[in-house]
Amino acid sequence: MSARIRLGMVGGGQGAFIGAVHRMAARLDDQYEFVCGALSSDPERARVSGLELGLAPDRAYGDFTAMFAAEAVRPDGMEVVAIVTPNHLHFAAAAAALKAGFHVICDKPMVTSLADADALHGLVADCGRIFAVTYNYSGSAMVRQAREMIAAGELGAIRTVQVEYSQGWLATDLEASGQKQAEWRTDPARSGLGGAIGDIGTHAFQLACFTTGLVPESLLADLQSFVPGRRLDDNAHILLRFAGGARGMLWASQVAHGQDNGLRLRVIGENASLEWAQEEPDRLWVAREGQPRQLVTRGGAGAGPAAGRVTRIPAGHPEGYLESFATIYTEVARAIRGEDGAGLYPTIEDGVAGVRFVVAAAQSSAEGGVWVRV
Amino acid sequence: MSARIRLGMVGGGQGAFIGAVHRMAARLDDQYEFVCGALSSDPERARVSGLELGLAPDRAYGDFTAMFAAEAVRPDGMEVVAIVTPNHLHFAAAAAALKAGFHVICDKPMVTSLADADALHGLVADCGRIFAVTYNYSGSAMVRQAREMIAAGELGAIRTVQVEYSQGWLATDLEASGQKQAEWRTDPARSGLGGAIGDIGTHAFQLACFTTGLVPESLLADLQSFVPGRRLDDNAHILLRFAGGARGMLWASQVAHGQDNGLRLRVIGENASLEWAQEEPDRLWVAREGQPRQLVTRGGAGAGPAAGRVTRIPAGHPEGYLESFATIYTEVARAIRGEDGAGLYPTIEDGVAGVRFVVAAAQSSAEGGVWVRV
Amino acid sequence: MSARIRLGMVGGGQGAFIGAVHRMAARLDDQYEFVCGALSSDPERARVSGLELGLAPDRAYGDFTAMFAAEAVRPDGMEVVAIVTPNHLHFAAAAAALKAGFHVICDKPMVTSLADADALHGLVADCGRIFAVTYNYSGSAMVRQAREMIAAGELGAIRTVQVEYSQGWLATDLEASGQKQAEWRTDPARSGLGGAIGDIGTHAFQLACFTTGLVPESLLADLQSFVPGRRLDDNAHILLRFAGGARGMLWASQVAHGQDNGLRLRVIGENASLEWAQEEPDRLWVAREGQPRQLVTRGGAGAGPAAGRVTRIPAGHPEGYLESFATIYTEVARAIRGEDGAGLYPTIEDGVAGVRFVVAAAQSSAEGGVWVRV
Amino acid sequence: MSARIRLGMVGGGQGAFIGAVHRMAARLDDQYEFVCGALSSDPERARVSGLELGLAPDRAYGDFTAMFAAEAVRPDGMEVVAIVTPNHLHFAAAAAALKAGFHVICDKPMVTSLADADALHGLVADCGRIFAVTYNYSGSAMVRQAREMIAAGELGAIRTVQVEYSQGWLATDLEASGQKQAEWRTDPARSGLGGAIGDIGTHAFQLACFTTGLVPESLLADLQSFVPGRRLDDNAHILLRFAGGARGMLWASQVAHGQDNGLRLRVIGENASLEWAQEEPDRLWVAREGQPRQLVTRGGAGAGPAAGRVTRIPAGHPEGYLESFATIYTEVARAIRGEDGAGLYPTIEDGVAGVRFVVAAAQSSAEGGVWVRV
Repeated sequence: MSARIRLGMVGGGQGAFIGAVHRMAARLDDQYEFVCGALSSDPERARVSGLELGLAPDRAYGDFTAMFAAEAVRPDGMEVVAIVTPNHLHFAAAAAALKAGFHVICDKPMVTSLADADALHGLVADCGRIFAVTYNYSGSAMVRQAREMIAAGELGAIRTVQVEYSQGWLATDLEASGQKQAEWRTDPARSGLGGAIGDIGTHAFQLACFTTGLVPESLLADLQSFVPGRRLDDNAHILLRFAGGARGMLWASQVAHGQDNGLRLRVIGENASLEWAQEEPDRLWVAREGQPRQLVTRGGAGAGPAAGRVTRIPAGHPEGYLESFATIYTEVARAIRGEDGAGLYPTIEDGVAGVRFVVAAAQSSAEGGVWVRV
Repeated sequence: MSARIRLGMVGGGQGAFIGAVHRMAARLDDQYEFVCGALSSDPERARVSGLELGLAPDRAYGDFTAMFAAEAVRPDGMEVVAIVTPNHLHFAAAAAALKAGFHVICDKPMVTSLADADALHGLVADCGRIFAVTYNYSGSAMVRQAREMIAAGELGAIRTVQVEYSQGWLATDLEASGQKQAEWRTDPARSGLGGAIGDIGTHAFQLACFTTGLVPESLLADLQSFVPGRRLDDNAHILLRFAGGARGMLWASQVAHGQDNGLRLRVIGENASLEWAQEEPDRLWVAREGQPRQLVTRGGAGAGPAAGRVTRIPAGHPEGYLESFATIYTEVARAIRGEDGAGLYPTIEDGVAGVRFVVAAAQSSAEGGVWVRV
Repeated sequence: MSARIRLGMVGGGQGAFIGAVHRMAARLDDQYEFVCGALSSDPERARVSGLELGLAPDRAYGDFTAMFAAEAVRPDGMEVVAIVTPNHLHFAAAAAALKAGFHVICDKPMVTSLADADALHGLVADCGRIFAVTYNYSGSAMVRQAREMIAAGELGAIRTVQVEYSQGWLATDLEASGQKQAEWRTDPARSGLGGAIGDIGTHAFQLACFTTGLVPESLLADLQSFVPGRRLDDNAHILLRFAGGARGMLWASQVAHGQDNGLRLRVIGENASLEWAQEEPDRLWVAREGQPRQLVTRGGAGAGPAAGRVTRIPAGHPEGYLESFATIYTEVARAIRGEDGAGLYPTIEDGVAGVRFVVAAAQSSAEGGVWVRV
Repeated sequence: MSARIRLGMVGGGQGAFIGAVHRMAARLDDQYEFVCGALSSDPERARVSGLELGLAPDRAYGDFTAMFAAEAVRPDGMEVVAIVTPNHLHFAAAAAALKAGFHVICDKPMVTSLADADALHGLVADCGRIFAVTYNYSGSAMVRQAREMIAAGELGAIRTVQVEYSQGWLATDLEASGQKQAEWRTDPARSGLGGAIGDIGTHAFQLACFTTGLVPESLLADLQSFVPGRRLDDNAHILLRFAGGARGMLWASQVAHGQDNGLRLRVIGENASLEWAQEEPDRLWVAREGQPRQLVTRGGAGAGPAAGRVTRIPAGHPEGYLESFATIYTEVARAIRGEDGAGLYPTIEDGVAGVRFVVAAAQSSAEGGVWVRV
């Protein structure tokens, strides 16, 4: 077994959701040791959170500046930092981490402006560190299966991509109740230009591009804020045009009652179609021209090597959200070690593309729903 | 039992598909007697087809002009005529039938131009005959259930409507093989301006409007003809804006491998959401804010009077496509008899709205994908 | 078109359920003319019911004896009679009809004792009339598909058959409310030895035998009457052993809350498995060794000639319960006319087998749950 | 954070499946530190496997005897041992571990004879150590939800339990190919009396008892070995009778083509029914008398405190097999620490019940399929 990668974290303390996900993901495949954190923007909460999580007292830092400085000079210092704060804090932490020589795993959307995205892109290019963005669904085995089939030409030319991400948890003004997750996600100052398009639309967009390899050329967005008083979009209708003539539709909604986490992708090609839904992640529908539909399962007949490489347990033993997340973490660990076949974790390019998507969608909608280049 | 309505038919002879559907629909509830037909545009084929179907020799006409003339003066003459030809022939037959004093049941899309639609609208207004358009899905019991719930305010204000109609049968250039259904449906001379948008998109559009009661204001369409050489759209991406602020997305496709007849509607309201899929017509998903999703079945608990009125058999005994079609026929029979509560069969207004939809979509797309008033 | 078969009916008047189903089934494919009836065991109700259904006054009979006598001597007399009374009246009507020279379509379970079953079997053999039992699910297109695949050896030797039929409508003592369907079905005097096993268990049993061609050798039944005071079984657990070594399990229940009409069949063979559920009748799951599962749809790729012969409309346009029933009726019409390929309608043998099944199950359970020869 | 529990392992080295599952489960919630192992019955392979997994060289033992002796005297010694060998080796390792003072987490089925089961039961009673059996499905959140609802009386008296566990991986004689998992599972010397009934039937049985709280009184089994030459059952049909009058059916099969890991439970009560399927573990169908079926999701509306206690991430973010397993591990950790509410992990009693089930089923079937007390 290779030595574990030493992991630190910015954000993700008491009351957070995604920080715990990152830590479970990092543990699952035993590729990481969680060694330090600046787990809150409030220094006291940051330190208390670190102790609660079993960090050594001197490595439960009050802020990331102190952490980067201290860890950079420890012989057993952090190698990679996970940034899991609200969106508006990603840039400062990521930029500082890169400058301090650390690899970075950053939550999505990567940053809140194109300028920050470009700046970060430049930093990554300059410093040669690994930079990953946790578009975790691209780590799901059957998403890898879809990507492999499309890349191998099994679908022929792609014609249309139907992707949607529907949730219902913001169908009411939950933010008014003080619920922390709702509060920052509906606040432009912390979330950026995008509400639903940033929080979940970028996942849908990345999934469509990741599986198909299509390059978006332009989009047209009709964004709505259905809940009275909400300042960011909570529902988005988007048309997509890709290079080469493929088209797409993207629906993102946080007001769809009864939907828990309905990310769903359908890719229609010249010769075949695929369908995948995040809530049943181990299944991929394959429809080839002139044949009955097939249901390919992770670990089962018809699943190829790309899915096999990220499969932990046999068919029918469900792997889920944490497992997809863990796959990204494990691929980053391999990349840090310079191992071959480090894999397909989302990179700075995915991060930049996600920001471009949010900015273009916001602009298109603001102009009344017009075509905008991505 | 009331006397059976005497039914004639234009089109629907040998090799046709939808004519047989109309005849089965007319028989199912025993409201009609099929008495005469001009079953093909080819007079000889028309007569042979009529004899094959058991019509009296003198009522198996060679063309509809002769039929309308003869039937108008028979004491036992036809009362209503079903028009089931390819689209381009609907107008002439329907107009002639109305002028001759017959009620009309017309297949969709009603006609191929706005001018014809308006002309027919005027004729119907003048002559006081019943005019129905067979948007049959609106006859499905759980579609009635959805409409009733929305009308009763159970969803609150509608926020977004997601409707799609996906098929795969035209994923290749089937029309080149001489397949009759493919041939005329992909031929602008016979089908009109719309390919997928006319053949199936209008169903989706009517379903969305019928269930929600929303009035469309504008749309934006991005139409594609993916199969090389095809002259009409075989895939359509459409954004909708309704009066009052509701929005919608509509996807119609005939190139979606593996999809048989995937008409599916989701309505998201302020307080609840509904989901219905044509291939599982006896089921309606209901998601109320803060409650688990419910699956209401035709004939089962939670199904109300509107569904009950068009329910023939108990829950779990599937009613399907023909039953929805038969409901339209039966409601027309009641209307012809002047019975109370004749029901909700689609009328000339639905027919006109469908034509407006096709024309607007074609125009929007031709102009590059811009917003167009409906 | 061939001349319509003249159909009469015993039972099925006001307040009945299955009579209307038979009449719709007879109409759907236009193979029958409904000419006479003795529609109730109450003569007055019988006559009123007939008039309501549009029968000629002289052919709305007060009882079946009168009807058989009169119709036998009319030149335009009834050719076949449908018997749709409660079970205890089947035998007398069927025997009289056969003796009077009529073909018979009898609802299931055919009769209420082995003696009656054998007697009827003898009568059918003697008189050479067509005798059909409406195990309608065997008329469903994808059930035919399953049967064809098994007969062609695609599954290899059958190993186990899992069949179940679950409903929830008798989970409470509905019979106490006076609901007519519940009343006679839970009354040994009218229903016979079997409650759930007779009403729905026989359907499940026939479906298993029809699709697989397996011959049952013995069974073991554990029957329950869960609702206090109920005199017949409302839940049945049955193990099956077939000639040649195949085995089966059969669950029939009328106390399964939330189940509408859950007839479901799974056949596991040496080389492949099949799964079909009545509530989604147009779909058949096929799992071949070493391949992903396939979903074959009626009218779609992979559906063979046996399904094709009983398919009315294209894939994705659901056919349901009435269509399966209509297929039985149409096959009987063909048989009456002596046409080739009259088809696969259930015969007196199926009827006898169903009675044997009920008797054996009741006996096995009464003896504490022991193996009994069928 | 509490200190991590020090975990050792017997079995689970190179080529094993379930050992890796136990280790991932132990890591997920960060409650354990994996400190030592005797990972194979082959001493050399045991040591190599340990080093590969990152164990300290002196704690990668050649056999469990040496490990228990050494760890018992280390100040930082193992506290609990996971036993993940083939079934026939469970007893010796578990008994030795208990005698050496360790807590034990044992895979299922616990042991291969009633005598061993009773002996182990005695040892556990004597030594006061924690003993858990990894019937992991009972750790799934919606299984806990089902149990809580039943215990609260929401279903009323239970009437029937339908439980099945179907797989297809042993539909052919895979054991002949040398596949390790198939080899030992089909070998009576290593697997014990039960093939499918031991490997998966015990899971189904435990799940039925765990959720309902029912106490089995007797069973009747018809076991088959369908694959020629196979020495243990690969398909099992079992009827169950519980104290108080509830009944059940249990199907376990490893020859069901197309089934990956089809564990499925349906519980029918007086007032409501539940349905859960392991391959969609985050969903529970609830059908209350007179109401539409509801789909309750983990983390969603309608999920109660029992599910909430074992929920890691929000609704719609699938938790799967490893998460259910991790819940058992975490509850054992709490029990070891003596924390309140240690939870519901399966205990020695579940282990004994599972062995009784296997023995009774084998006996019943060997006697021709008769009722046997459990």
